[in-house]
Amino acid sequence: MIRVVLVEPEGEYNVGFVARLCKNFDIDELYIVNPKCNIVNAESFSAKGRDILENALIVNSFDDAIKGVELKIATSSIADTKGDILRKAIRPWELNDIIGGKKVALIFGRESVGLTREEIAKSDFLLYIPASKLYPTLNLSHAVGIVLYELWKTKDSRKMKVTSESLVLIDKYSKLLFNLIKNYEGDLSMYFALKRALIKGVSDEEEARTVIRFLRKIYTRILHQDKE
Amino acid sequence: MIRVVLVEPEGEYNVGFVARLCKNFDIDELYIVNPKCNIVNAESFSAKGRDILENALIVNSFDDAIKGVELKIATSSIADTKGDILRKAIRPWELNDIIGGKKVALIFGRESVGLTREEIAKSDFLLYIPASKLYPTLNLSHAVGIVLYELWKTKDSRKMKVTSESLVLIDKYSKLLFNLIKNYEGDLSMYFALKRALIKGVSDEEEARTVIRFLRKIYTRILHQDKE
Repeated sequence: MIRVVLVEPEGEYNVGFVARLCKNFDIDELYIVNPKCNIVNAESFSAKGRDILENALIVNSFDDAIKGVELKIATSSIADTKGDILRKAIRPWELNDIIGGKKVALIFGRESVGLTREEIAKSDFLLYIPASKLYPTLNLSHAVGIVLYELWKTKDSRKMKVTSESLVLIDKYSKLLFNLIKNYEGDLSMYFALKRALIKGVSDEEEARTVIRFLRKIYTRILHQDKE
Repeated sequence: MIRVVLVEPEGEYNVGFVARLCKNFDIDELYIVNPKCNIVNAESFSAKGRDILENALIVNSFDDAIKGVELKIATSSIADTKGDILRKAIRPWELNDIIGGKKVALIFGRESVGLTREEIAKSDFLLYIPASKLYPTLNLSHAVGIVLYELWKTKDSRKMKVTSESLVLIDKYSKLLFNLIKNYEGDLSMYFALKRALIKGVSDEEEARTVIRFLRKIYTRILHQDKE
């Protein structure tokens, strides 16, 4: 299940075009967080995607828009900034391997300022569409189009790789371990790096389970010692 | 050399967006055949691609637009119609192999009726962007975006990426940690799983270094406790 989330979109044409693209690529759900433009006016750009627009869910907060999904993919045209682990980004063609058959939210930010760091931090991955160094900022709906196209390409061959339960456990133990060794509050970079590398890297459920067992054993080893 | 050709475009926003996309993906030339809309009004949609629009060549005929190129790629949302050889189509991801280093025109038709059979016949290939059977017709500029993105992909050189020194360190700390928690000799599966997932999953050297720091901190945390 793929949900497209637009966060505070400002351009009516973009909202309309995104609805059309959702129709073009059989997207299941469109959520719009707190739109800054007139949704009714967007209809003229939605062509045969008008029903997608009419059925779009308008919500008041980012958190409401990501409820019920297993994997949250934020997008940005600013990525791979040196020294900023949060902005390490995957590429569109890596999506299918990560997604498997999961319930996924693809999250696109404001035309003017994109997503906030807080919104990116609430997501599991950051995605970047590679483009010219001189001007990498794609228009919102064109970014949506490219991502949906890339997902569509391999639609038939999507593998059910790793269960969402395992993703939750990888996240959980990465965070628990991180809490044991962190130097100071606020810098979550080691947690982000480990969690993302593992979610991307595990090649099937069995490997995921083995990694989780490893993490849990290390964690209980440390806890056990702390008690002694 | 890549030239984008728009044949009789009808929507100002599309012309503007295409200019922006040409800037996003370092396209060399934009040709517009006999535009059916006001090019000046397109500027507001071109953002930082305005210079591309100002330098676009407006020509009077399809033939003028394909002069001087070695390979002409027509595009259509109607493709692979049974019994119609002219409409046999390639896919965007096949472009790079076909193009090599040639001078290429990527030709996009009218929003309303696309390219004529005559125009397709004058081209060397027909390209089709796969999409929903129910509604495969992408908006013009979104089709352009997807094709230019696909051409650009091969220029993205983020890969290789992680130094062999980091690979050695991931291996080393996975093994050291494993030795602290293993139940019995012989079963190395947890070590293999963690090491492989991490080596596959880290997306560049900086992320690898951050993961290694995490593993080392956990390791020294346990060692330190053991001494107490």
